[in-house]
Amino acid sequence: MSSSNQALNAFERIRSNKMFELSVIAVIIGSALLVGAKTFQLSPVGEQIVYWLDIAVTIFFLLEISVRFIAHENKKRFFHDPWNVFDTLVVTISLIPISQADTALVARLVRVFRVLRMVSIIPELRMLLNSLVKALPQLGYVLLLMFIIFYVYAAVGATLFHAINPTLWGDVAVSMLTLFRVMTFEDWTDVMYETMTVYPLSWIYYLSFIFLTAFAFLNMVIGIVVNVMNEEHERIIKEEAEAANEPTIADLKAELAEIKQMLAQRQ
Amino acid sequence: MSSSNQALNAFERIRSNKMFELSVIAVIIGSALLVGAKTFQLSPVGEQIVYWLDIAVTIFFLLEISVRFIAHENKKRFFHDPWNVFDTLVVTISLIPISQADTALVARLVRVFRVLRMVSIIPELRMLLNSLVKALPQLGYVLLLMFIIFYVYAAVGATLFHAINPTLWGDVAVSMLTLFRVMTFEDWTDVMYETMTVYPLSWIYYLSFIFLTAFAFLNMVIGIVVNVMNEEHERIIKEEAEAANEPTIADLKAELAEIKQMLAQRQ
Amino acid sequence: MSSSNQALNAFERIRSNKMFELSVIAVIIGSALLVGAKTFQLSPVGEQIVYWLDIAVTIFFLLEISVRFIAHENKKRFFHDPWNVFDTLVVTISLIPISQADTALVARLVRVFRVLRMVSIIPELRMLLNSLVKALPQLGYVLLLMFIIFYVYAAVGATLFHAINPTLWGDVAVSMLTLFRVMTFEDWTDVMYETMTVYPLSWIYYLSFIFLTAFAFLNMVIGIVVNVMNEEHERIIKEEAEAANEPTIADLKAELAEIKQMLAQRQ
Amino acid sequence: MSSSNQALNAFERIRSNKMFELSVIAVIIGSALLVGAKTFQLSPVGEQIVYWLDIAVTIFFLLEISVRFIAHENKKRFFHDPWNVFDTLVVTISLIPISQADTALVARLVRVFRVLRMVSIIPELRMLLNSLVKALPQLGYVLLLMFIIFYVYAAVGATLFHAINPTLWGDVAVSMLTLFRVMTFEDWTDVMYETMTVYPLSWIYYLSFIFLTAFAFLNMVIGIVVNVMNEEHERIIKEEAEAANEPTIADLKAELAEIKQMLAQRQ
Repeated sequence: MSSSNQALNAFERIRSNKMFELSVIAVIIGSALLVGAKTFQLSPVGEQIVYWLDIAVTIFFLLEISVRFIAHENKKRFFHDPWNVFDTLVVTISLIPISQADTALVARLVRVFRVLRMVSIIPELRMLLNSLVKALPQLGYVLLLMFIIFYVYAAVGATLFHAINPTLWGDVAVSMLTLFRVMTFEDWTDVMYETMTVYPLSWIYYLSFIFLTAFAFLNMVIGIVVNVMNEEHERIIKEEAEAANEPTIADLKAELAEIKQMLAQRQ
Repeated sequence: MSSSNQALNAFERIRSNKMFELSVIAVIIGSALLVGAKTFQLSPVGEQIVYWLDIAVTIFFLLEISVRFIAHENKKRFFHDPWNVFDTLVVTISLIPISQADTALVARLVRVFRVLRMVSIIPELRMLLNSLVKALPQLGYVLLLMFIIFYVYAAVGATLFHAINPTLWGDVAVSMLTLFRVMTFEDWTDVMYETMTVYPLSWIYYLSFIFLTAFAFLNMVIGIVVNVMNEEHERIIKEEAEAANEPTIADLKAELAEIKQMLAQRQ
Repeated sequence: MSSSNQALNAFERIRSNKMFELSVIAVIIGSALLVGAKTFQLSPVGEQIVYWLDIAVTIFFLLEISVRFIAHENKKRFFHDPWNVFDTLVVTISLIPISQADTALVARLVRVFRVLRMVSIIPELRMLLNSLVKALPQLGYVLLLMFIIFYVYAAVGATLFHAINPTLWGDVAVSMLTLFRVMTFEDWTDVMYETMTVYPLSWIYYLSFIFLTAFAFLNMVIGIVVNVMNEEHERIIKEEAEAANEPTIADLKAELAEIKQMLAQRQ
Repeated sequence: MSSSNQALNAFERIRSNKMFELSVIAVIIGSALLVGAKTFQLSPVGEQIVYWLDIAVTIFFLLEISVRFIAHENKKRFFHDPWNVFDTLVVTISLIPISQADTALVARLVRVFRVLRMVSIIPELRMLLNSLVKALPQLGYVLLLMFIIFYVYAAVGATLFHAINPTLWGDVAVSMLTLFRVMTFEDWTDVMYETMTVYPLSWIYYLSFIFLTAFAFLNMVIGIVVNVMNEEHERIIKEEAEAANEPTIADLKAELAEIKQMLAQRQ
C-alpha cells in the first residue's frame, strides 16, 4: 500500500468519523447563531468576539471541505454532487475579505447561506428537499395553466384599470403582483372597490379570477395527494409481496395443474 | 388521386408537421409578449415595432387557421370542436381594424385572448382544462346549497343592516358581495364591529355564516378528493386485471370443476 | 271505498303530481326573488306589485301545505318529519299581518326563510344537509377540545390584556371573539403589536394559540377525510361482493373439501 | 383484611364511583364558569359570592386529589402519570393565598389552568390530545426544515431591510415574527411595498418565501394524511383478518398438498 493511499484512508477515516460529523453540525449551528447575533446591536467587545468567531468558522469550514475533497476517491466526481458544489461555493465566497464597504453586504449574505449547509449535512433534510424538488415537475402543466390565467388577467387588468391606479395596474408585471395579492385575499376588496367606482361590474373580474385560481390550486393539491397515495399504495403492495413470500393465486394454479397431471397419468 | 385530394394531403402534411406546431406555439408566445409589452410605456419606435409585429401575428394566425380548416377532412365537423370555434373567433375578431377609438379597447382585449390559444394548442393543457370542467357538475348541488346559504344570509343582512352601511348592505346583490368578502376573511371584523354597535348580537350572524360556508366548502373538497380517489382506484384495479392477465379465483374454480369431472368420470 | 278515502286519494294524486312539485319549486324561486327585490329601492308601483305577489305566494304556500297535510295518511306522523314542521312554521308565521311596525322586521325575516323551503323540496339538497348534520357528532370531542383551548386562552387574555384594550379583551366572551378573529388571521398582528408594547413576550400567547388551533383543525379535517374514505371503501367492497357474485376463497375451500371426499370415498 | 386495606378499598370505591366522576366534572365546569365570571365587572356581592365559591372549589379539588392519591395502589407510581402531576400542581398552587398583590395575577392564571383539568378527567379528550402529541415527532424534520427556511430568510431580511423599518426587521428574532405574519398573509403587501421602495426587486424575497413555506406546509399536511391513512388501512386489514377468520390462500395451498398426498398414496 503506497503512502498516498494511506493518507487518503486517514482522511476518509476522519470524514466517516461520527465525531467529525457532529462537530461540523455544531459549527454550522454556531455559524447560524453568529449570523443571527450580527443582526442585533452589539457592544464593541461583542463585535470583536463575533469577528474572531466568524474567522474561526471560515477556517473550520475550509479545513472541513478540504478533508472531504481529499478523502473523496474520484476528485472529478466530487463536483457531480450538487451539494458539494454548493458547500464549496459558500466556503470559497466566505474567504473574500469583508473590509470593502461595497461587498460587505454581499459577504454577510453569503454567511447567511452557511446556515443552509445544515440541509446538506443532515441526510434526512437532504432527502426531504429532494422529494420536494421531485414533486415539482408533476406540477409543471398546472403551474403553466396557472401562469397563463395570471398573465391573461394581468393583461386585461393593465388594459382596463391602468388609468385608475397606475401603482397597482401600471403594467402587466405589476398587475401580476397585484393579482397574487388578490389570490392571497390580502386587502383584495380595497383593490376591487377602487375599480368598481369606474367599472361597477369589475367584481366579475375579481370573483372569476378567485374562483379559477382556487379551483386550479385545489386541483393541484388533489393531484399531488392522489399521486403520493398511489406511490405509497404500490410500495406497500410490493413490500407485502416481497416480505411475506406468501403463496399467490398463480401458485395455486400451478398446483392444480400438477394434480390434473397426476390424475391424467393414472387413467 | 385527384389534384384536390393531393392539395388536401399537402395541407394535412403541413398541419401534422412538428415544425408547424412548434412555430405556432412560438408565435403564440410572441403574441403574449406583445400583449404584455403594450401595457408598458413604449417609445414611439417601440410602438411602431409592436404595431407591425401585431399585424404579422394576425396574418400568421389567419394563415394557420386556414391551413387547419383546409386540412380538415370534414369541413362541417371542424366547428364541432369548441377549441376550433374559439380559435376562429379570436382570429376573426382580431381582423377588425383598431383605428376607431371606441373599439380600440375591445380589440386590445381580444388580442389578450390570443394568449389562451396556448391552452388550445398544447394537448396537456386542453386535457387539464377538460378535467377541471368535468369536475364542475358533480359540485352542482353543493354549489346550489352554497348559493342558497349566501342568498338567505344576504337577504337577512340587507334587511337588518341596510340602514347601518348602505355601501355594504344596500341590497341583496351588494350584500352577497360583502358576504363573499367575509368568507375570504378580508377585514371581516371591521364589517362585524360596525353592525355590532347597533345589534350587539350580530356576531352570531357572522360566525354562523363562516361556520356554515366553511363546513360546506370542506364537504365539497372532501367530496372531490373521495371521487378522484375512487376513480383512480377503479382505474388501477382495471389496469392490473387487464395488464397482468393473472389467474383469478374464478379461473381456479373452473380448474377445480375440471378435476372433479375427471374424478367423477373414473368412478 | 268511502268518499273520504276518495278525496284523500285525489289529494295524494295532486301531491305526487310532477307538475305540482315543479310549480311549488317555481313559486319558491319566485318568493326568493321577491325577498331579494324588497331589498332594492322600488317605485310605488313596484312596491304594490311586490305586495300583491307576496300575498299570492303566501296563499299558494298555505294551499300547498294543506294539500300535503290532507294527503298524508297518518296526520300525527306528518309532524314527525322535521322538514314538515319547518314548512308549516314558515307558512303560518307568514300569515301574521305585517301592518304593525314592530313585527314588520320579523315578518320580513320569516319571508326570507321561505327560501330555505328550496332545501326541503329538493331531495338532493335535503340529503346533502342530512349528511352535513350527520358529520357533526363525530366532531364532538374535537370541537369540545377546541372550545376548551379557546376558553383557556380567552380567560388568560381577559386577565392579562384587559387594561390594554377593553374593547378586545374586556371579558371572556369578547376575548373569545377576538381569538376567533386571530384564528382567521384577520388583522391579528395589530392585536398582537398592541399587547406587545406592554408584554413584549405576548407573541408566545398568539403563536402558541395559532399553532394549537391550526393543529387541532388539521386533525379534525384529516379525521373527517379518513372517516369518509373508510365508509366509501366499505361501501365499495360490499357492493362488489354483492353485485359481482364472484367466487370467494371460501367457495374454493368448499370445492376442495368435496374433491377430498370424492377421493376418500374411492379408497 | 387489615383496617388500612379496608380504608383503601373505601377510597377506591369512591374514586371509581360514577357519581364521584360526574361531580368532579360538574365542579370543573363550575370553576371554569367562575374563571369566566371573574373577567366581567361584578357587583361587590357578586365578587363575594365568587370569592367563596372559589374557596369551595379549591377545597373540593384538594379533597378529590387526596382521594385519588390515597386510593392509588402504588403511591410512587401515582406521579408517573403526567396528568396526575398536572392535577396536583394546579391544585397545590391554587392553595397559595392570593392576598398579596404581586402574586394575585399568577394565582388567577393558575385558576385558569383548572379548566384544563377537563382534559385530564375526560378520557376521550385525553386520548385526542395524546394522538395530537404523538403526531408531532413525525413532523420533526419538516418543522426543522421550516425553521431553517424562516431563519435564513429572517437573517437576509434583517441584513437588507434593517434600515428601512427597524420595528419589522430590527433583528433576526423580530424578522422571524414578521415573516410568520407574511406567511399568514396578514397585511403582507404593506410590508412588501415598503421594502420595494428601496429594493424594487424585493418582491422576489416575499414570493419565494411564500412559495417555499406553502410548499413545505402542503408537503407536511399530505405526509400526515398519508400516514394516518396507512395506519387506518393496516388496522382494517388486521381487523378483517382477525375477525372474519376466513380461509386464506395459504389455507388453500395446504389443502391442495393434502389432496396431492392422497393421490400419491394410491398410486
